[in-house]
Amino acid sequence: MIQIFITGGTFDKSYDSINGQLYFEKTHLPEMLKRSRCTLDIDIKTLMMKDSLEMGEQDVEMVVQACQNSQAEQIVITHGTDTMTRTAATLANAKIEKTIVLTGAMIPYAFGSSSDGFFNLGCALAFVQTQSQGVYVTMQGQCFHWNQVEKDKDKGIFYKL
Amino acid sequence: MIQIFITGGTFDKSYDSINGQLYFEKTHLPEMLKRSRCTLDIDIKTLMMKDSLEMGEQDVEMVVQACQNSQAEQIVITHGTDTMTRTAATLANAKIEKTIVLTGAMIPYAFGSSSDGFFNLGCALAFVQTQSQGVYVTMQGQCFHWNQVEKDKDKGIFYKL
Amino acid sequence: MIQIFITGGTFDKSYDSINGQLYFEKTHLPEMLKRSRCTLDIDIKTLMMKDSLEMGEQDVEMVVQACQNSQAEQIVITHGTDTMTRTAATLANAKIEKTIVLTGAMIPYAFGSSSDGFFNLGCALAFVQTQSQGVYVTMQGQCFHWNQVEKDKDKGIFYKL
Amino acid sequence: MIQIFITGGTFDKSYDSINGQLYFEKTHLPEMLKRSRCTLDIDIKTLMMKDSLEMGEQDVEMVVQACQNSQAEQIVITHGTDTMTRTAATLANAKIEKTIVLTGAMIPYAFGSSSDGFFNLGCALAFVQTQSQGVYVTMQGQCFHWNQVEKDKDKGIFYKL
Repeated sequence: MIQIFITGGTFDKSYDSINGQLYFEKTHLPEMLKRSRCTLDIDIKTLMMKDSLEMGEQDVEMVVQACQNSQAEQIVITHGTDTMTRTAATLANAKIEKTIVLTGAMIPYAFGSSSDGFFNLGCALAFVQTQSQGVYVTMQGQCFHWNQVEKDKDKGIFYKL
Repeated sequence: MIQIFITGGTFDKSYDSINGQLYFEKTHLPEMLKRSRCTLDIDIKTLMMKDSLEMGEQDVEMVVQACQNSQAEQIVITHGTDTMTRTAATLANAKIEKTIVLTGAMIPYAFGSSSDGFFNLGCALAFVQTQSQGVYVTMQGQCFHWNQVEKDKDKGIFYKL
Repeated sequence: MIQIFITGGTFDKSYDSINGQLYFEKTHLPEMLKRSRCTLDIDIKTLMMKDSLEMGEQDVEMVVQACQNSQAEQIVITHGTDTMTRTAATLANAKIEKTIVLTGAMIPYAFGSSSDGFFNLGCALAFVQTQSQGVYVTMQGQCFHWNQVEKDKDKGIFYKL
Repeated sequence: MIQIFITGGTFDKSYDSINGQLYFEKTHLPEMLKRSRCTLDIDIKTLMMKDSLEMGEQDVEMVVQACQNSQAEQIVITHGTDTMTRTAATLANAKIEKTIVLTGAMIPYAFGSSSDGFFNLGCALAFVQTQSQGVYVTMQGQCFHWNQVEKDKDKGIFYKL
């Protein structure tokens, strides 16, 4: 069984037509899995729906505990890209004996044909099945070890340290 | 470097508004890679654009030779789903010392928000980086060994033998 | 009240992933009206779901009678493009004292971002509110009188006679 | 000839993946007209790209003058929805002897399958061809006279006064 934990981020943002802002309405994960025709044994759980810049220590700790307590040994976490590497590092320090892969999106899935979200989800579900225990970040088709990745915020790209 | 070989299939079909039929106009792979924001070192080559039911022995042989001759040791092949397992078996028999992953789509990428193509491409690019030498098929988030997969044509699903 | 009668056509085709063919599953009209945020008083009724090349005399007669019997004085008909002008002519000969606008699509609505269907629906709903009694065809943003339009099947375009 | 003047608004917003905000990159009108397969004689001109809340008196005056000076007698204006009625009123006061139709979108066209933009464009191009001289607003399939419409900002809906 693969556990997907949702924390929010650009990945899951929706558009609020009343005030013209992006916000969190509901996660798109179930719809994405249905569309992918995925036959993996997956459990989805929403831990929170936050911009990763708004995730504080307690939020990150909640993610860590959820990973520790989960029955699954393979965990995918959807997360905002701005502090994804920080959460990855905190998870790594907790030395959880599982394969944990974090991913997100630079363009909301709700945007449809310009979003990278669906592709990233595919990468994450694939990597989580094949990587050995540890914490990873996948963006742009790449799989980075938690301590070998950083986000270049000016370019909107993750690169290998 | 990862080589992507294109053979066609539902994955790359387009809609011909003049006669109302699906056909092969041009591959969508470059557009998909751009949208995925992929930073992998990838070369795309179109071997053919055919419905896999129309791939004859010579077509499959062309795929085998292309894999043998490629400088890449990691190869993704986009392929129609109806004879994907046959091409996979033929590739396996050629004992090419590379990691080869075949994928396709049940709904054309051109259909936009209902297609599984973009997700499958993510899975394929991920699996090709992590699997050991051999021939694999990925659909539905799963990675099947070439000799442990069949397509259930009534249900439109790949299952593990 | 505006009546929308559905007869099928490319407008409403869906993709059958099992056999790779386009077919009629269910009409997309309710979903389109919801997405348009339409506040018009509209009733939708499916008369049939057919390729217009497969509409025989009885089918066209059914459309004529539905228009005659409808309580609405403003009627939009979604229709395949191949015989749209024939149905329009038959309707005109019935001398129904209503405003009737036929439209369709060159690319199925299900295709998402490449379809003209949603735009054509907007045109049809607008023209049906403003045109005087008579029968019209709208495609490509234009409103043609029933006896001043033909489809160029080679180019996939409607032009004014 | 129909003139389309672009002023911006939600209609034309794009997503900036670097900072996660909506902004104006380039207008989508040419792409929309191509997709609609429109055969009308249309000229597109971008007057500005602004949120309508940021349009000041000079901006609205620029719109009025553009309408006065245009060779076209049929003008569509794409505009943010928040101050669309204000611009419409100012245009009406200028007593320009043309048919002017303003429209916009509640969800950016860039969002793809959830946007009302493409439908509204169809309505606007239809109404501008059939309405007599005057200033109109079209949203939700309806055509409102400039002095008989208001936007309910809480509900995100235009209603007839």
